[in-house]
Amino acid sequence: MLTASVCVALLACLHAQELRGHISVILLGATGDLARKYLWQGLFQLYLDEAGKGHSFRFHGAALTTTEQGQEVIAKVLESLSCPRDTAPARCAELKDQFQQLSEYRRLKTAEDYLALSKDIEAWVQREGLREAGRVFYFSVPPFAYADIARNINSSCRPGPGAWLRVALEKPFGHDHRSAQQLATELGSFFQEDEMYRVDHYLGKQVVAQILPFRDQNREALDGLWSRHHVDRVEIIMKETVDAGVLTTSPCSPCSGRTSFYEEYGVIRDVLQNHLTEILTLVAMELPRNVSSSEAVLQHKLQAFRALRGLQKGSAVLGQYQAYSEQVRRELQKPDGFHSLTPTFAGVLVHIDNLRWEGVPFILMSGKALDERVSYVRILFKNQACCVQSEKHWVPDQSRCLPQQIVFYIGHGELGSPAVLVSRNLFRPSLPSSSWQEVAGRPGLHLFGRPLSDYYAYSPVREQDAYSILISHIFHHRKDSFITTENLLASWVFWTPLLDSLAHEVPRLYPGGAENGRLLDFEFSGNNLAFSQQPLEQLVPGPGSGPTPSDFQVLRAKYRESPLISAWPEELIAKLADDIEATAVQAVRRFGKFHLALSGGSSPIALFQQLATGHYGFPWAHTHLWLADERCVPLWDPESNFQGLQVHLLQHVRVPYYNIHPMPVHLRQRLCAEEDRGAQVYAEEISALVANSSFDLVLLGMGTDGHTASLFPQSPTGLDGEQLVVLTKSPFRPYQRMSLSLPLINRARKVAVLVMGRMKREIAVLVSRVGHEPRKWPISGVLPDSGQLVWYMDYEAFLG
Amino acid sequence: MLTASVCVALLACLHAQELRGHISVILLGATGDLARKYLWQGLFQLYLDEAGKGHSFRFHGAALTTTEQGQEVIAKVLESLSCPRDTAPARCAELKDQFQQLSEYRRLKTAEDYLALSKDIEAWVQREGLREAGRVFYFSVPPFAYADIARNINSSCRPGPGAWLRVALEKPFGHDHRSAQQLATELGSFFQEDEMYRVDHYLGKQVVAQILPFRDQNREALDGLWSRHHVDRVEIIMKETVDAGVLTTSPCSPCSGRTSFYEEYGVIRDVLQNHLTEILTLVAMELPRNVSSSEAVLQHKLQAFRALRGLQKGSAVLGQYQAYSEQVRRELQKPDGFHSLTPTFAGVLVHIDNLRWEGVPFILMSGKALDERVSYVRILFKNQACCVQSEKHWVPDQSRCLPQQIVFYIGHGELGSPAVLVSRNLFRPSLPSSSWQEVAGRPGLHLFGRPLSDYYAYSPVREQDAYSILISHIFHHRKDSFITTENLLASWVFWTPLLDSLAHEVPRLYPGGAENGRLLDFEFSGNNLAFSQQPLEQLVPGPGSGPTPSDFQVLRAKYRESPLISAWPEELIAKLADDIEATAVQAVRRFGKFHLALSGGSSPIALFQQLATGHYGFPWAHTHLWLADERCVPLWDPESNFQGLQVHLLQHVRVPYYNIHPMPVHLRQRLCAEEDRGAQVYAEEISALVANSSFDLVLLGMGTDGHTASLFPQSPTGLDGEQLVVLTKSPFRPYQRMSLSLPLINRARKVAVLVMGRMKREIAVLVSRVGHEPRKWPISGVLPDSGQLVWYMDYEAFLG
Repeated sequence: MLTASVCVALLACLHAQELRGHISVILLGATGDLARKYLWQGLFQLYLDEAGKGHSFRFHGAALTTTEQGQEVIAKVLESLSCPRDTAPARCAELKDQFQQLSEYRRLKTAEDYLALSKDIEAWVQREGLREAGRVFYFSVPPFAYADIARNINSSCRPGPGAWLRVALEKPFGHDHRSAQQLATELGSFFQEDEMYRVDHYLGKQVVAQILPFRDQNREALDGLWSRHHVDRVEIIMKETVDAGVLTTSPCSPCSGRTSFYEEYGVIRDVLQNHLTEILTLVAMELPRNVSSSEAVLQHKLQAFRALRGLQKGSAVLGQYQAYSEQVRRELQKPDGFHSLTPTFAGVLVHIDNLRWEGVPFILMSGKALDERVSYVRILFKNQACCVQSEKHWVPDQSRCLPQQIVFYIGHGELGSPAVLVSRNLFRPSLPSSSWQEVAGRPGLHLFGRPLSDYYAYSPVREQDAYSILISHIFHHRKDSFITTENLLASWVFWTPLLDSLAHEVPRLYPGGAENGRLLDFEFSGNNLAFSQQPLEQLVPGPGSGPTPSDFQVLRAKYRESPLISAWPEELIAKLADDIEATAVQAVRRFGKFHLALSGGSSPIALFQQLATGHYGFPWAHTHLWLADERCVPLWDPESNFQGLQVHLLQHVRVPYYNIHPMPVHLRQRLCAEEDRGAQVYAEEISALVANSSFDLVLLGMGTDGHTASLFPQSPTGLDGEQLVVLTKSPFRPYQRMSLSLPLINRARKVAVLVMGRMKREIAVLVSRVGHEPRKWPISGVLPDSGQLVWYMDYEAFLG
Repeated sequence: MLTASVCVALLACLHAQELRGHISVILLGATGDLARKYLWQGLFQLYLDEAGKGHSFRFHGAALTTTEQGQEVIAKVLESLSCPRDTAPARCAELKDQFQQLSEYRRLKTAEDYLALSKDIEAWVQREGLREAGRVFYFSVPPFAYADIARNINSSCRPGPGAWLRVALEKPFGHDHRSAQQLATELGSFFQEDEMYRVDHYLGKQVVAQILPFRDQNREALDGLWSRHHVDRVEIIMKETVDAGVLTTSPCSPCSGRTSFYEEYGVIRDVLQNHLTEILTLVAMELPRNVSSSEAVLQHKLQAFRALRGLQKGSAVLGQYQAYSEQVRRELQKPDGFHSLTPTFAGVLVHIDNLRWEGVPFILMSGKALDERVSYVRILFKNQACCVQSEKHWVPDQSRCLPQQIVFYIGHGELGSPAVLVSRNLFRPSLPSSSWQEVAGRPGLHLFGRPLSDYYAYSPVREQDAYSILISHIFHHRKDSFITTENLLASWVFWTPLLDSLAHEVPRLYPGGAENGRLLDFEFSGNNLAFSQQPLEQLVPGPGSGPTPSDFQVLRAKYRESPLISAWPEELIAKLADDIEATAVQAVRRFGKFHLALSGGSSPIALFQQLATGHYGFPWAHTHLWLADERCVPLWDPESNFQGLQVHLLQHVRVPYYNIHPMPVHLRQRLCAEEDRGAQVYAEEISALVANSSFDLVLLGMGTDGHTASLFPQSPTGLDGEQLVVLTKSPFRPYQRMSLSLPLINRARKVAVLVMGRMKREIAVLVSRVGHEPRKWPISGVLPDSGQLVWYMDYEAFLG
């Protein structure tokens, strides 16, 4: 026993020995704004925290400036460093002096400069009889400089074997997914993933860094609360009062003109894609069993990204403060007529498609020139109490009918300091008492609709700057406080489609400050966000208050001697969905069920979405869904018509499993093999379930070559004869198809043909003129025996 | 043209002629409370409204009292009738005199009495040269008297051909589904459905009667709001201050002692099953295109009943005011030790399982001896706005961040009169200005958290009594204001299981009035309601605050040389669900998918529910679900194992369609026909998709005869051999089964056997002692090659 414990102690000792050693910190861009304001102070703090533990440090400030100029700047910065609050002045001077001794400025420009630095470090280590433990390079430089510096470090300034290399990188990490990928690939050719520390300084803010520990330490109370069953909404907010020209607490673009940076990036790239998204994942991710495992945290974070529902144009509202364009014209020398489209305000609605968060709105909002400066994450819980006594008897800190919320108050605002707030009618949270203390009462202060006294409120015992914390985390290899390449790319995968779709959107102009009034208030409904107020120009009521979509007439006419309904796409789909529902209701009333055969393709997707969200009266429980045609791919292939139906309709309605009839294109692990008789199997299923094999409604489309379902021109299969279901060949991939035959389609009680988009204009004109020529234009053979054929064409297809 | 229009006019005239004629109203129980307080006044109102339109009326008050006594009572009642507000006193006296002339009292007891009445009416009609249009019998008598009266009316007092019969019935309409059905059958043997008017006087209250017209007249605004996407909750509330001995506005039990009635019925039967449920359907039902069609309204109402999710014990909280039991003892001469279990307070959580309302809580609450008297329906909308300005700048009647609600204020409370309230930040409602007027301002009055001035508020121009309205509706054949037999039975089908399950529950005692404090406040979570406060006895903290389920140890032991996990049912299911999730996560991590085979029966249902509601991390998208066995019934049969899986699990999670593998027991419209090779088809599917035909987890049960899956004793099929899937015979209906074979089960990576309930005790003991004897006890053959077998037994099965 003795031997073993001695052994353990010895090992621990050796291990500690190994960890300790000499560390070089190279601050690139050492004379820049960010460095002067935060990074030097952070390095000083690192020195104070760690030097006493046996490590040896040297700090190399580097830049492109001449040595003389650089030294002058650095000397000033070092002089202005501050010691922890309780340090005696004499002790402080002593500490600063020590730090100054270990700090130097040097110009780093050429490969030779880097090599020289490396040699200097080695020489120093040898001279001092030290062992080199590692080197930290902190990139506080604009991104265009990254590649050169990285190349130089990799080729000329890596530490020797046994010592580590860590590089800290400041955003922006690209402009969209492609550029981020490019930058990541480039950096990846110089550094290992494990060597890179991408900084999002929000992850260093004390309250943000507390989100996961808070969820961990209050697991018992939160387990029953942290889901769609209880959370009403999550707001992730960063409001600023300043404009785009001012460097604020968010030192996002070191060393570059603020306005020119902003004009290129805008609020979504500047704040939402990084800071607010990181917070979103901290709130939404599944909580790892061990939150101190960086690997587990990063993995769970990545899973949260995967569950994010894709954003669409309608997911965001954009604004721009009125003075912004003038500011851009002035500072960036743009011509008089120039108007920027860069948003300085954005609200975005995010949904998370997993069972924990399905249906809970996550609202991300940030903007400049707003009425107050404040950042917070607010989790508002559903009111699930019913208070029997009349309101006047409710007790604020007990009544469960009053608001229940948890707020991670990141800073500023009326409270003026970081804090964690939990409504007293919710539960008493547990926070580490060594670092968090209860906030003193502030009579009269209201936060989020309730007096401060309604909350358990905790703030940090010692406020710490985000950069100091992150520099310490780099030193301690806490990778979960940084953005991994996977994490970064996942975020861009999420944001890039929205940014692309908004590229030409005109943001709503706002005056700035309190004058914004309700102009920027927005509302969500389903997947969509919209400003609450109509645009200003419509607030002045004209003769009729501006056309709304429903004002456009739905046109009724004849096409190929059958009724034609034409409208703008949105109204057309709404009309078709209404008609399908009416047909369904009628069929169920008469026969107890409704047999609907649907086509694939892109046009029906909007229809599926419409049916999925609005049609509450639709008798889904009595509806049988059939496919009009299918591609010979597995059902789970994204190309499968069935997959489109599943994603856009079946997931959202309650059709019983056994009423769903995908085409059997995939039998015995083969696709559409003749000998598996899939077409016959489907035909038998139809004969067995559908009276007289007569569907209540068949929905078809029309291809630009005149094909319909999967009946193609110049191929006679399925155009006549006895077969109800046929295998056919398409001129497009995948070539093999299964399709209802024309005779079966024509047995339907009703057929609707949906034709949308400018691309269909030519064929629509052509088909309007031809007779019954199914071999040339299969669609011309659609003529149900019932006579019930209706064409639904949008204006682009019908009028061009 | 001329001829046609003349013809139409002529027809209309004839039709009108036909409608007019002599009407006899027979009020049964004419001397009772209800009649004296409301019904005579309602009949007078009917006379005032209709007599001028060419109808002739006579009113026959009837009871069992002697003629003399009855005449005396009636004379007093008729003297006390009041005329409409603006009637001059002389005119009023004249009108009352006319009415008195037409009203008489007569004793109705025997069949002869009824026959005599009928003859009298006929004689009168003949003498006056009138045509008999119809007879109304209003039953204001206790339900035990219904049958006799109905028989007498039917046999001796029906009007002649061409004249209608209408009978109005007062609740209670039974005590549960069986008694309601019985009563309905009995009444149905005397009257046509169309002849019966079951009165729920709440349907005559002006605000309640306005719900459908309001929804109709504000369709445009409500279309986008009236669904789960926007409604946060619906509260349907009737609070009373009085106790059970007082006859209040709710004259529910005419002619019977109030306390004895109440003791038998309780608050759920007295208020929730009828009044509040009727209101619920008016709010929740799909809105017919034509709300003035009685038939359409009644049909849609019935559909709403069908969509109600079944109630369980946990759906309700019950209370009883403290003085109640003493009151029962005193008034009903009960012994000293008697304690009533009748609830005088109930809160019930109702969910509606259709796409419009899925997930929206409907809270029904009523009670006596509460702090205020008030009734209302409140539709509270979700806050879907994000207000960018800080709170202090919000404008109450515009900001969409403040509460948005619609309240149908039925009466009393702080407002003191019926009203319809719509938050001004929602929309300006449309109400018929002839009958509804804006409520005058009442500074200082707050309703539902906001000042009255925050609402558009409308009240009736002329307040009308519910009975007057309903009597008029009987006359005008407005069947939708009454409870049809179908409607009544649907309501009892909904309420009876809850009433049964609560029959022996001890209600929480409450002091009454404002002293109730927070004692009755309740909260919901999922399907369950619970009081917010712990019961009083636990408020005094003892040594440890009372055992909670999780305090009971999960027991680990060995059973048949495999691990056994035993616990109370709730913990056992929770543990099994956790273990399944862990297995799933691990399988998906290693193989990308998880193959799970599930058994049917009742025990797994709790497991399915547990998995469906809590397990957010479950990798459903990568899970394949297989059946361990199936009954040879169609998949949609309630007996089908698959159906249980669908209802309790699949509806709630997102397993892709093609990962669901029901057993093919139903091929070519036949059940388990050998020649359809269903077992082979399933075996092939397994071989194709499951690597090595080795499921990741098979969940089994154990029958009291030692069967498992559908492998039964004394039948060798499936116990050994090559077949993976077999058809078997069960000793129980349905006899035909399909099952995984024992060899296939034993190829699983892991097998879990779930055994629950006292019924399993004996077989559990037996099986613990036997060796490997699958022919006698198939379960004893379960021994996976992997060695991974775990038994999950609850304490009742394991310890008896």
